[in-house]
Amino acid sequence: MAQLQRIAINPEQIQGSFITLGQEQQHYLIRVLRLRTGDRFIAMDGQGKWWLAQLQAEQAQVLEQLTVETELPVTVTLMVSLPKGNGFDEVVRYCTELGVACIAPILSDRTLLNPSPQKLQRWRRIATEAAEQSERCFIPTILDPVPFTASITGSVATHRYICEGRGDYPHLNNAINSQPAEITIATGPEGGWTEAEIAQAIASGFQPVSLGRRILRAVTAPTVAITLISAAFHR
Amino acid sequence: MAQLQRIAINPEQIQGSFITLGQEQQHYLIRVLRLRTGDRFIAMDGQGKWWLAQLQAEQAQVLEQLTVETELPVTVTLMVSLPKGNGFDEVVRYCTELGVACIAPILSDRTLLNPSPQKLQRWRRIATEAAEQSERCFIPTILDPVPFTASITGSVATHRYICEGRGDYPHLNNAINSQPAEITIATGPEGGWTEAEIAQAIASGFQPVSLGRRILRAVTAPTVAITLISAAFHR
Repeated sequence: MAQLQRIAINPEQIQGSFITLGQEQQHYLIRVLRLRTGDRFIAMDGQGKWWLAQLQAEQAQVLEQLTVETELPVTVTLMVSLPKGNGFDEVVRYCTELGVACIAPILSDRTLLNPSPQKLQRWRRIATEAAEQSERCFIPTILDPVPFTASITGSVATHRYICEGRGDYPHLNNAINSQPAEITIATGPEGGWTEAEIAQAIASGFQPVSLGRRILRAVTAPTVAITLISAAFHR
Repeated sequence: MAQLQRIAINPEQIQGSFITLGQEQQHYLIRVLRLRTGDRFIAMDGQGKWWLAQLQAEQAQVLEQLTVETELPVTVTLMVSLPKGNGFDEVVRYCTELGVACIAPILSDRTLLNPSPQKLQRWRRIATEAAEQSERCFIPTILDPVPFTASITGSVATHRYICEGRGDYPHLNNAINSQPAEITIATGPEGGWTEAEIAQAIASGFQPVSLGRRILRAVTAPTVAITLISAAFHR
């Protein structure tokens, strides 16, 4: 089990046993993920095919095609407002079991907590344990916490949702109607998002959705969201 | 309205247009919630009825009966193998939030724990708190634990499912294809059901179903099952 980074590629980028990499992908792998020549990563075509690849300057060599039956066919990033107390432990454990690819803790208007490096280490250890226990191939990435605005405006997935308990928004199940390669979904703090946060998310291309008629705790909403996404794309 | 404090009452406490309040309820309203005469709160009878009430010293006046839409349109009974440790606390809390009507703890072949009366009281308190927090009008019933066989053969719902992680069973989402009045769904212990248990459940009319391709903890499976049922019958 390795914590290999994943990137989405277009199937046409595979030529023989090599993957050509676009400028943005090179930037992402080398500048953002800090990979170097010889490092391995996972290339996913967003249609259920995965390849183990090795970076070689401006391209990558395909080492092998991977058979994965325990991973979701969609890369799901959970943006989650840090709840009070140790609730985030539960969020990491449940959502890892359910197939999340990346968890991005965010500091919202109603979140005061800025977690210590020890907390982050603890969450990464929980993710590792939960990934092994649930027989996943990959360990989800737990990002460093960032403020709400940076997180919202930095999100690039084509399908972006923000969950809100109050208000008359469509149910997440009804909002998901095609299978994208990537989904980002955000869940709020105790007390919900502020109106300004919802407005900012919508302006940044997030679609507001409901998780049902009952008011969920900040700790419960992420598990419900990832459960519904994983069931929607069950193969 | 949504911000009013809620307390559970016994239907017999309503006499005419007044609610008599017990010592503990008075203490909770006045000392804990800091309500004063004239303040309003919501009284729930745990069977689907809510009243808007106004505190008047040692009793409360009923102002109006409320219409609530936070309950599922289907009565869901969760039969759940008791997990190790304090995991059942989480099961009760999450599943109550998600709309379960009844939780039936069962003692399976791989369950050794026989919970104390204090544990049961604790679970009922958690269910009450979670029902109030999630603005439900029903407090789920937590039954006394019974052995697997008695629980399986005693189940009367027309739609009965047993969740099993291993094996090639249809996904719960695909198994649910009409809206019954009642559903019973059973989730297993750590390590899964024994083959004999699965066979007995099938013989008793339970349909075996999968919750997805990842192996879930005994604590996680109930939440996933109730999430999927509540989303399937979202109004």
